[in-house]
Amino acid sequence: MTAVVVFVGSPRIAGQQKGIHWGQGVQPHDDVTDGFIADPNDHVAELFEWYEAGEVNVPNPNEHVSFEVDDASAELVREWTTNTGALVSGRRLFDIADGWGDHHPTGAPVIVVTHQPPENADRWPRTTFVEGVEVAIARARQVAGDRDVTIASASVSQQALELGLVDEVCVSLVPVLFGEGIPYFTKLSRGHQLLDDPVVIQGRRALHLRYRVRR
Amino acid sequence: MTAVVVFVGSPRIAGQQKGIHWGQGVQPHDDVTDGFIADPNDHVAELFEWYEAGEVNVPNPNEHVSFEVDDASAELVREWTTNTGALVSGRRLFDIADGWGDHHPTGAPVIVVTHQPPENADRWPRTTFVEGVEVAIARARQVAGDRDVTIASASVSQQALELGLVDEVCVSLVPVLFGEGIPYFTKLSRGHQLLDDPVVIQGRRALHLRYRVRR
Repeated sequence: MTAVVVFVGSPRIAGQQKGIHWGQGVQPHDDVTDGFIADPNDHVAELFEWYEAGEVNVPNPNEHVSFEVDDASAELVREWTTNTGALVSGRRLFDIADGWGDHHPTGAPVIVVTHQPPENADRWPRTTFVEGVEVAIARARQVAGDRDVTIASASVSQQALELGLVDEVCVSLVPVLFGEGIPYFTKLSRGHQLLDDPVVIQGRRALHLRYRVRR
Repeated sequence: MTAVVVFVGSPRIAGQQKGIHWGQGVQPHDDVTDGFIADPNDHVAELFEWYEAGEVNVPNPNEHVSFEVDDASAELVREWTTNTGALVSGRRLFDIADGWGDHHPTGAPVIVVTHQPPENADRWPRTTFVEGVEVAIARARQVAGDRDVTIASASVSQQALELGLVDEVCVSLVPVLFGEGIPYFTKLSRGHQLLDDPVVIQGRRALHLRYRVRR
């Protein structure tokens, strides 16, 4: 069955694109122990260290991305790259990532939520631009077949949670206290969202938590 | 060796005291998955459910407090009540708790940081009132002997972290998204605080994480 998964732990892209260094770019996917996914200046700081904290290389189709992780985290990354059948992104993240060069590290086609597709959309032939989160997730489900739909933006995750469309929330919790910064989850209009107790994978420099969303 | 421990997971007190219901009082000790320890109105909502989510009763010296927890959480609560040799609290928490009736659930003597001790301080013969976090922790170390000093207030934890006096941070992570609320940790003047990878205890309705503070 296709599950819609919010994955707070997807990879950075090495090098520079569009003048923004990725080590300092907006990739709102990891989560420090006090609940932020970037410092107030959008810097991710220590949050991506686990991507290179081990000796296991996990291949992926994007030449700018590499994973050199510990055994436990490798299991998680393999699962993520294997099980993702479609990836839903917000427009801001897509722009910063320069569309992952049309090769998202998961290998999955990307569905971008935007009111206005880029004029040079033909640069990303495997990427689809649609208006609205609900439409994007419906499209992503079609594309994903039996595999999971992964959501890769804070704003889209937020809206999908609001719409009751999210099955799982995956968080990679990094052992650092920022004290201030940019939160991944923001206010839900219908109140608190309960989750099941998580499946736990203890990685090096990241504790990977997989929660089912309670309905 | 005495360790100074920030324990983001100490017990509520059942019943009402000073007109504030404890289920809704300010007990900034637990931590939801998105990093808050209370909602914007100081309500702890689902954060204390794990205290009564199991069948194991862990005794404690406060008649208003009871723990009915799962096996894994019981291990944690036993360790906490056994190992705490002194407890450091801020004045606000002390007032709201009415000084735990001079019987904190850990059984440990309480050191309260305050500029002005209460006039009726003789109501709490096992409680000491001192000025300043540094003095409070020094006093608590003397009192604790070989056992741990536990810090039970957000403001005191914050200041103790700033002063480099904290050895461990313990967080009980509850599977619920608040989306907004009151954070436990706030800005540190010297930047991000790195922690070691945590020891993990998987409790029911709380994931207990014990981090050593990196120096």
